Amino acid sequence: MSGANSVNEQRLWQRHADMAKLGGTPKGGVNRQALSPEDAAARNQLAAWAKARGFEVFTDAIGNLFVRRAGTDPQAAPVMSGSHMDSQPTGGRFDGMYGVLAAFEALEALEDAGIRTRRPVLAVAWTNEEGSRFQPGAMGSAVFAHPERLATMLQQKDWEGVLLKDALAETLKAAPAPMRELGFPVASYVEAHIEQGPRLEAAATTIGVVTAIQGSRRYIVTVEGEEAHAGTTPRAARKDAYAAATRLAAALYDATADHDDTLRFTIGRVEVSPGSPNTVPGKAVFTIDMRHPDDTVLADREAAIERLLAEKTAPCTASLEKIGAMPPTDFDPKVIALVRDTAQALGLRHMEMPSGAGHDAMHIASRCPAGMIFVPCERGISHNEIENATPADLAAGTRVLVEVLEALANR
Amino acid sequence: MSGANSVNEQRLWQRHADMAKLGGTPKGGVNRQALSPEDAAARNQLAAWAKARGFEVFTDAIGNLFVRRAGTDPQAAPVMSGSHMDSQPTGGRFDGMYGVLAAFEALEALEDAGIRTRRPVLAVAWTNEEGSRFQPGAMGSAVFAHPERLATMLQQKDWEGVLLKDALAETLKAAPAPMRELGFPVASYVEAHIEQGPRLEAAATTIGVVTAIQGSRRYIVTVEGEEAHAGTTPRAARKDAYAAATRLAAALYDATADHDDTLRFTIGRVEVSPGSPNTVPGKAVFTIDMRHPDDTVLADREAAIERLLAEKTAPCTASLEKIGAMPPTDFDPKVIALVRDTAQALGLRHMEMPSGAGHDAMHIASRCPAGMIFVPCERGISHNEIENATPADLAAGTRVLVEVLEALANR
Repeated sequence: MSGANSVNEQRLWQRHADMAKLGGTPKGGVNRQALSPEDAAARNQLAAWAKARGFEVFTDAIGNLFVRRAGTDPQAAPVMSGSHMDSQPTGGRFDGMYGVLAAFEALEALEDAGIRTRRPVLAVAWTNEEGSRFQPGAMGSAVFAHPERLATMLQQKDWEGVLLKDALAETLKAAPAPMRELGFPVASYVEAHIEQGPRLEAAATTIGVVTAIQGSRRYIVTVEGEEAHAGTTPRAARKDAYAAATRLAAALYDATADHDDTLRFTIGRVEVSPGSPNTVPGKAVFTIDMRHPDDTVLADREAAIERLLAEKTAPCTASLEKIGAMPPTDFDPKVIALVRDTAQALGLRHMEMPSGAGHDAMHIASRCPAGMIFVPCERGISHNEIENATPADLAAGTRVLVEVLEALANR
Repeated sequence: MSGANSVNEQRLWQRHADMAKLGGTPKGGVNRQALSPEDAAARNQLAAWAKARGFEVFTDAIGNLFVRRAGTDPQAAPVMSGSHMDSQPTGGRFDGMYGVLAAFEALEALEDAGIRTRRPVLAVAWTNEEGSRFQPGAMGSAVFAHPERLATMLQQKDWEGVLLKDALAETLKAAPAPMRELGFPVASYVEAHIEQGPRLEAAATTIGVVTAIQGSRRYIVTVEGEEAHAGTTPRAARKDAYAAATRLAAALYDATADHDDTLRFTIGRVEVSPGSPNTVPGKAVFTIDMRHPDDTVLADREAAIERLLAEKTAPCTASLEKIGAMPPTDFDPKVIALVRDTAQALGLRHMEMPSGAGHDAMHIASRCPAGMIFVPCERGISHNEIENATPADLAAGTRVLVEVLEALANR
């Protein structure tokens, strides 16, 4: 038996169904935000499956959860694969979870096939990839790659003011695991993920050989005006924070429209206060998420945002806080070649492509050779409860993954 | 002693200070939303003061709270004065509360002066004038004037989904009072209120003789698109509900700007979902509050809103729900004249003016002759925690009120 032949499509699909119950929504998606009770339940589920197979389970100071299948060389650094189990508030069943379950299926397939590897093989579930509850996203992998960032991250607060430190302590209490060193050496890293875009489906192609991740920048814009009575205050006397925020947002959408539709610009979260229908808003806060493969384009648009902030919001005042910035990531040429050659050898249609979304792999790529494997998702829809993928595609990506991990674990 | 001479400026000011503690905020304002525990505390406070003076206290099916000073003619319908004790989420200490405490001070002043009136004089605190928690505002007075609306109002929900019926039951349990018939006959009604605008202060005038209330319309706009991943979805493939809502809002601000700055247009509440920084919004909901002295202008702008809704939101869809409409209210000429003549007789500077804000008096005016008395507030600022007024102006308005009520109660 090869590892690829031991991949069990039905088991993998059932594990997705089991995980989808944890934070499952009536529309068939999941709400399993980082460090929530649903996140803790998913951690306990993964740990239970791991222990049933005799794999070791441990965590680290930011709550990343590891499952370890031993290798033959006790000194060798492990190869690692995984993704995240947290979701958007109205997220899908596959975003992140597929990468964790594919990695775990790879461990099980190696076990079922009786394959010994020189290096240990680890499956990992990174903490808080989504960044919808706590900023920034891809936090667990960032702290793993840069342990010096831990202290700052622990002080982050969610939108209700809950400290990440406290939410993490709650989660680790509800889903306990032995604590190990943060940021231990890793030989190589490969992450499987649904594409979250339409290209593979459109090309009737099963495997995306991911070459790079586009750069991204995240901001919070705060517009401050003055609360006033909606019935008595003439427009000329108002400092209407939402009217100013609307002028600014309209100008930002215009300033970020590019002719080839490559720049991604999103205002995803908006809070207007005091939020009463008959009070002129005194404050409006919104987020900006901006991405492009070319970092100089992002720098240029950031300068445009700063200019518009001052131009469009008088008589209110506005400020821009940069809460995250990732330059574009290029994956390791040898890992890219290994993924491509493995898909080829398994007779799977494949294509090289960059990733539009950020992934934990972008941080780990700064620590070791890294790559990613994409599989198609229906209509390219993600961050949506109707996100979908086929059992056959999920299994195909996992077959590539297990062969790649085996090869890397014997290098 | 006349009623006006018995008005006790210090007592009135102290009562405002006592009430400001119930829901008081660090910035010196109040958060005492309708049917909240803070609202119940204010009801208990008013009832305690009333009972200490031997006045009767009762409520009705929508939770309006009445304080009654008996008259000499047991058959005569009462004259009534009051306003509301609920506040905006970040409201001031005087909006509404002044009208309730001025009415109560009038009862006490009549009592202190030993004045008997033919008709009973009632002080009233209307339920949910602000409409910030439950829609629509001025609910208690509306139901008093139109008891057939009670059943509908009881089914209203707040933004968290709490039924008004349940919040009302909780409040009446925490602040119990004998229940009386809804919408009993009233001989006349006069409401005191801070101006909530800048005109009296600018004219160094103490008393506003209110002639009318401008018309208002309230709407909820819902824009629906499709959630998608912020990093992978090209703009051309997006149905971004917030981008569409921004185009619409920008066009609405433009379409409602009038050359003499008379039309009031406010977007006060905005909700964008799922509210995650890296998900393209699938839904955006916002409120519109629009007011003008001329109802035909409101009808014309409503038609413009409907037109823009379709024009500006493609490829998303949008709908407009009208949740409230009040035509302009003209107050009773005899009550207006009485307020004016009383201010004149007391030697107080006064001017006639319409009200920019809606008030409970607009509903009661459909049931009996009604009028209003305005006093200045600092810089015209209201619906804001820094709302302010002077003890002297509050007392002056109350002196006019007690004389007007005495005259009406002997007619």
